[in-house]
Amino acid sequence: MKQILIIGSGFAGLNAAKVLAGGKNVGITLIDRNNYHLFQPLLYQVATAGLSPAEIAVPIRSLFASYANVRVFQGEVIDIAPNDNLVHTDIGEFYYDYLILACGARHFYFGNAAWEEFAPGLKTVEQAVEIRRRILSAFEKAETISDMQEKSRLLTFLIVGGGSTGVELAGAIAELSRFTFARDFRNIDPTMARIILVEAGPRILPTFSEGLSAAARVALERLGVHVWTSRKVARIDREKVTIDGETVAAATILWAAGIQASGLNRFLGGTLDPMGRIIVEPDLSLKEHNHIFVVGDQAHVARQQGRPLPAIAPVALQQGRFVARNLLREIKGRKRKSFHYKDKGQLTTIGRKKAVMEFGGIELQGFWAWMAWLVVHIYYLMGFKNRLFVLLQWTISYLNYEKGARLIVRKNWRFYGPEKEKDG
Amino acid sequence: MKQILIIGSGFAGLNAAKVLAGGKNVGITLIDRNNYHLFQPLLYQVATAGLSPAEIAVPIRSLFASYANVRVFQGEVIDIAPNDNLVHTDIGEFYYDYLILACGARHFYFGNAAWEEFAPGLKTVEQAVEIRRRILSAFEKAETISDMQEKSRLLTFLIVGGGSTGVELAGAIAELSRFTFARDFRNIDPTMARIILVEAGPRILPTFSEGLSAAARVALERLGVHVWTSRKVARIDREKVTIDGETVAAATILWAAGIQASGLNRFLGGTLDPMGRIIVEPDLSLKEHNHIFVVGDQAHVARQQGRPLPAIAPVALQQGRFVARNLLREIKGRKRKSFHYKDKGQLTTIGRKKAVMEFGGIELQGFWAWMAWLVVHIYYLMGFKNRLFVLLQWTISYLNYEKGARLIVRKNWRFYGPEKEKDG
Repeated sequence: MKQILIIGSGFAGLNAAKVLAGGKNVGITLIDRNNYHLFQPLLYQVATAGLSPAEIAVPIRSLFASYANVRVFQGEVIDIAPNDNLVHTDIGEFYYDYLILACGARHFYFGNAAWEEFAPGLKTVEQAVEIRRRILSAFEKAETISDMQEKSRLLTFLIVGGGSTGVELAGAIAELSRFTFARDFRNIDPTMARIILVEAGPRILPTFSEGLSAAARVALERLGVHVWTSRKVARIDREKVTIDGETVAAATILWAAGIQASGLNRFLGGTLDPMGRIIVEPDLSLKEHNHIFVVGDQAHVARQQGRPLPAIAPVALQQGRFVARNLLREIKGRKRKSFHYKDKGQLTTIGRKKAVMEFGGIELQGFWAWMAWLVVHIYYLMGFKNRLFVLLQWTISYLNYEKGARLIVRKNWRFYGPEKEKDG
Repeated sequence: MKQILIIGSGFAGLNAAKVLAGGKNVGITLIDRNNYHLFQPLLYQVATAGLSPAEIAVPIRSLFASYANVRVFQGEVIDIAPNDNLVHTDIGEFYYDYLILACGARHFYFGNAAWEEFAPGLKTVEQAVEIRRRILSAFEKAETISDMQEKSRLLTFLIVGGGSTGVELAGAIAELSRFTFARDFRNIDPTMARIILVEAGPRILPTFSEGLSAAARVALERLGVHVWTSRKVARIDREKVTIDGETVAAATILWAAGIQASGLNRFLGGTLDPMGRIIVEPDLSLKEHNHIFVVGDQAHVARQQGRPLPAIAPVALQQGRFVARNLLREIKGRKRKSFHYKDKGQLTTIGRKKAVMEFGGIELQGFWAWMAWLVVHIYYLMGFKNRLFVLLQWTISYLNYEKGARLIVRKNWRFYGPEKEKDG
């Protein structure tokens, strides 16, 4: 019986575990910081009050309830000892015959970690709830204030980073203010909210073609989003961003720029790329430790031409499945294969009936790209129940522009406690 | 145009606002600490992972979007000046012709506020999410530990208070461990979880008849809940409760015992009862200030025989509507009426197909009481969307015992920040 240890239950880890669970003579241990698998591509909808966290999360252990060879633990890795085949965690030590690392990436502030407090990123449920709190609170506060300058600061939303997440956030905040909130306020006109998307490069969605990138920009601008390209953020303070010497006062600042691979890579002794991803062999194992595989956003997989594989869900999902199948092959005494990514194209939504899509040389924009986006996301969303609920939320939002989760949840749960609630 | 100021948007405040919104020559201002109305009777299901917060909450301002005479603000009251017709809040000063106070109640630890940290109560969304975190985390931690004593501590859930909330929490935790988790763990047997319901009085559900109270006890005990009556909690420490000199180690301690009316009553100068509720006139106004009305859990309404009206949703709802109608009557120049409570009976659920009900002399228990509970709660739940979603969650739970929101959400959203996550 081979012991396979999987760290992380994102798209890569979870799909590896699912394939392995069906295998013979393998014992699988899956460890994650959280007790749920998160469908990250829809996290921006939690941040913009469209969905509830539980609608895009499934408890990991319920997925493996019927597989006696799978153990699931909630825990955090402290150290990895590749030469001893051991992983040290806050819940104890785990031995492995094979180790699959799938710990993903987190936001990176290019050395300015202090910016996080003023400009949260969007990688976790906690961050999504915090961003939702800030966005909704900004409108609530603006309604109570008469000072025009302060009102304008509260109704300015600045998003740093013009990739998929930045575009999706900007589009969703614009729709929230233009449609959902249209009749809800008396002292402010929510449609006057200023939404600014700042991108350091020459165009947004740089991984798409120039045509689609331009189409996305037009779609955002029609929603009233200000798109600032070729402009670099020099500094972020509390409710204030400095861009090219100019200071923009914005109560809500969101970070969708840099990401950095999991810090666990530092225990592995291999070569890291500038994003902190470890460079892996064609079978996704490590050169020095061929019983360790690194997959998903944590790995740097070189391609013959162009840049390494991007940090996106389809790559992680395919790598997870691939490694699992390779392992089962090896355990049966057969040779390992090399990983080849099957390009599933790209999809980003801007808003209602607005999306851009690229697949096998085909480019789509507008309604049909949006339909494709809906179908793909519902299809890949884990679990019958979640699919049903998300589909329903979307149908209701589509019909009446109402959002499903307009809740401002505080950070402190206590009435009496010594802790005082503070604004972030 | 009369200015009517309503503080609080629970059942009392919200229903008052809804009736007034349709009135002529009235301007309504509704202020609440939160941006949503919470359907508190189902909050225990959020705490036990059955529902998401957004499913039992509706954004207040969206309910009044089409009433131009209603303004909604998120704010907190700092002081009331009854002689100046002014309410001071953290978002400014509000003048009123009529004031309706509907601020409800919060948990009360009989002078032991320090217990809150170790034994949260269940009144707010934040508390429900915290309780859910504790319950789910206890099982997750128990799965990772080999020490049997520690395992047993982690799997002990102690609920203080045998009223409706205590009974509902105990029943739901029992079902979670007996059914939902049955096949999900490898190192623990969740069905061995020890759930203890402690009541100081001689029987649980003391407002019900002795027969129904006994039936509820039997139903709980069949689910494996230990019901301890006539036993008083002397002291609560971190994961430890002292009862009659005996110490029980329990990782999860929940408080469902005392409540206390909103502290705003102290600004009003009237007589308070031992629960902090202010004694109101038959028309629910204050003797000294007949332009101020106090309704819901914040008010003490004496009855000719027996105890004052209980702090429950139907009372609050009827009082809110009554005060609004009385005001519209007075504004038209007619005389005020006196409030008479129309008894809607009592309903408490213990679990799947188990509930107790009392209505107009009829007593029901078991399946039909449970069906009545379902119908009543779906009927009163605000908003088409919420009803649909809750009904669906319940149907799915009924079919496969799965719970809809098994998410452990952390208290801290930051990766880099100086704050360190601590266990409560």
